[in-house]
Amino acid sequence: MSNEITAEVISIGDELLIGQTINTNAGWMGDKLGLIGIRPKLVRTIGDDRHVITEALRSATCDVVLITGGLGPTKDDITKHTLCEFFGTKLVRHPEIEERIAGFFHSLGREPLEGNRAQADLPEGCTVIANDRGTASGMWFEQAGRVYVSMPGVPYEMKAMMEKEVLPKLKARFKPPAIVHRTILTTGLGESHLAKRIEGWEDSLAGADIKLAYLPSPGLVKLRLSAYAGADAAEVRARVDRKADALYALIPELIFGEGEARLEQVIGKVLKGRDQTLSLAESCTGGYVSHLITSVPGSSAYYTGGVVSYANAVKMEELGIPAGMLELNGAVSQPVVEKMALGVREALRTDWSIALSGVAGPDGGTEEKPVGTVWMAVAGPSGVRSVKGFFPGTRDLVIQRSALAALNLLRKELGEGER
Amino acid sequence: MSNEITAEVISIGDELLIGQTINTNAGWMGDKLGLIGIRPKLVRTIGDDRHVITEALRSATCDVVLITGGLGPTKDDITKHTLCEFFGTKLVRHPEIEERIAGFFHSLGREPLEGNRAQADLPEGCTVIANDRGTASGMWFEQAGRVYVSMPGVPYEMKAMMEKEVLPKLKARFKPPAIVHRTILTTGLGESHLAKRIEGWEDSLAGADIKLAYLPSPGLVKLRLSAYAGADAAEVRARVDRKADALYALIPELIFGEGEARLEQVIGKVLKGRDQTLSLAESCTGGYVSHLITSVPGSSAYYTGGVVSYANAVKMEELGIPAGMLELNGAVSQPVVEKMALGVREALRTDWSIALSGVAGPDGGTEEKPVGTVWMAVAGPSGVRSVKGFFPGTRDLVIQRSALAALNLLRKELGEGER
Repeated sequence: MSNEITAEVISIGDELLIGQTINTNAGWMGDKLGLIGIRPKLVRTIGDDRHVITEALRSATCDVVLITGGLGPTKDDITKHTLCEFFGTKLVRHPEIEERIAGFFHSLGREPLEGNRAQADLPEGCTVIANDRGTASGMWFEQAGRVYVSMPGVPYEMKAMMEKEVLPKLKARFKPPAIVHRTILTTGLGESHLAKRIEGWEDSLAGADIKLAYLPSPGLVKLRLSAYAGADAAEVRARVDRKADALYALIPELIFGEGEARLEQVIGKVLKGRDQTLSLAESCTGGYVSHLITSVPGSSAYYTGGVVSYANAVKMEELGIPAGMLELNGAVSQPVVEKMALGVREALRTDWSIALSGVAGPDGGTEEKPVGTVWMAVAGPSGVRSVKGFFPGTRDLVIQRSALAALNLLRKELGEGER
Repeated sequence: MSNEITAEVISIGDELLIGQTINTNAGWMGDKLGLIGIRPKLVRTIGDDRHVITEALRSATCDVVLITGGLGPTKDDITKHTLCEFFGTKLVRHPEIEERIAGFFHSLGREPLEGNRAQADLPEGCTVIANDRGTASGMWFEQAGRVYVSMPGVPYEMKAMMEKEVLPKLKARFKPPAIVHRTILTTGLGESHLAKRIEGWEDSLAGADIKLAYLPSPGLVKLRLSAYAGADAAEVRARVDRKADALYALIPELIFGEGEARLEQVIGKVLKGRDQTLSLAESCTGGYVSHLITSVPGSSAYYTGGVVSYANAVKMEELGIPAGMLELNGAVSQPVVEKMALGVREALRTDWSIALSGVAGPDGGTEEKPVGTVWMAVAGPSGVRSVKGFFPGTRDLVIQRSALAALNLLRKELGEGER
């Protein structure tokens, strides 16, 4: 489109250039801009250098220029002064912001230094973007039809400012073509196999003027449907929803949620809603599944605990696996993983349990059980179910992918319980 | 310095702009460039667009231009064609590379497609950089005193090419002033408290012409010493080593390693060397410590397993905590965490054990035990030791920081065992 609205990001900070901090802000902003119909075109990461910052501002060509970083209270933080110079204005103190900053320090039992108070000095003529989560305000400038917004580099502060003020203001200012989105989260099939499975459905999208993007990450593929809303947003929304419904009908066992949902949250919600409990017996994943489950606030309501049975002795003593069974089948086998699930469910007296036993590598693989071979089991009120997975890759990837596969196995078993 | 060698990175890929993939390559390259005395000045992240790529190449001003991405076998991957156009050359097929690609596919039992074979087409006149880990070769160009290197965007492939060929070639080509580095890893004190503790030592560095950088991340502070080597590299190396020795003498309990070492690796090495074993009892960290320990390849040699005792019933039944003790002191208390460590050490019959019990939040905090309060214990051959930590922050941060603190407690206890 020739009249599309474009955006660029200028990320300021020496720590980004030397790799001490990873620039996660720029990608996050690009995603959010895309969702309101503004196309991210360029990210420039530069150091805290007045000349370099000015040059970046001067050479900006997009409609929207989002700037992060360099707004702290120390001498290295020169973004604000550089913006004043660039826009030909000067700093003026905002007493109400100074008061808020002082109040913030007093609440911590400390006195603000002059450097802290100086964060209330903002360029005359800019529109101030409030920062609920910190002491550095945002600044909105317009010049020659272009919008420049400067925000702090702290992700937690920047994100709140973007969601609450900047994105709505950009929508109002540029009126980008409204876009209807649905992001459907799948697990259980890699990108190419998934594409084959939904080929016919995907082909039908063009006729409905809907675009599909595959967004893969280890163990997951997100499917994002988007369509320009034009005049009749409700009609477009309905059209996207119909295609989403068709996808649900096509691959129900692969879809675990939408948007920003995580599999461990989805499971937690189901368990909490049913007042049921979960326990884990992990071997190859070494506690990673337990870590995912407990990363969800409030997980203590349904997660009782788990056993990491790395050594065979632990499998025998804590989970009741007979020595003969281990000897006959090996630890990475269907009888052992099923007994692990049953054993931990009984020992911890939970409604559900998950067990995993596999070869995470890099060593320990055999021809029969190569690195990436993982047996997973879920035990529940009506018995135990197990599946074998193969997740070749580095140790980290084997752990991540098998953890998600095991969580998905539980999700499916929980779903069956509902019917 | 006016004659310093500078570098810029051009990261190519639509997936980077929309936030689907985080650009970790650029920071990694900046770090490695800095270590050989080349200053990273700019990162530009752009889409797979011929015009935009050409414009980025044309406007490069640094001595070194590192380009990643857009070298895959599909039609979207246009970097190679754009480089040909920019340098006024054409693609020629390299039969030995084509053979290697075909061999790679045959080893997977598959036939290479023409798109795969076409990865052996490379611009005439460029110096080919071999890719041991994939099918996209790197390309080195020189023009007007500037070096351009194009590499694949897959981190695992790019990193190997940088380490093996690109960094050594850049050193040879530009002869940047040699820099002597030592990166000393500390844990147990935050940046500002650490700075206060080593103030006098830090002041003494200026006289020795040594620079110090604080590189903080959750639970850790890396201290990087650097000095330009000039003519007498051995003398500078000795000078840096003397200052490092002084730092070791000053804060021995805070230093756990150097360079890229991780605390869980350091501990694993000690345990493996002594043929001793470890078990874990985790409450608030929910399996994260176990995940860290088992992320190290070969950890099954010393890690026996662990119990995640999220519910009090598990603490009682699996770890032998008396109900009265839990009632009297609460789960987050010194007696309980010590009994957890002793209980898991006994149950799993290991030489050492770690236990944690705390308030990870966001709920569950009280005035007496606010969110971030964590009791940690280590049990070993000569008894149990425990400490209380306070790690305020988000749930993720409480988990990460207390996990590192508990690992550090074990490290210190292991150190005592050596004396």
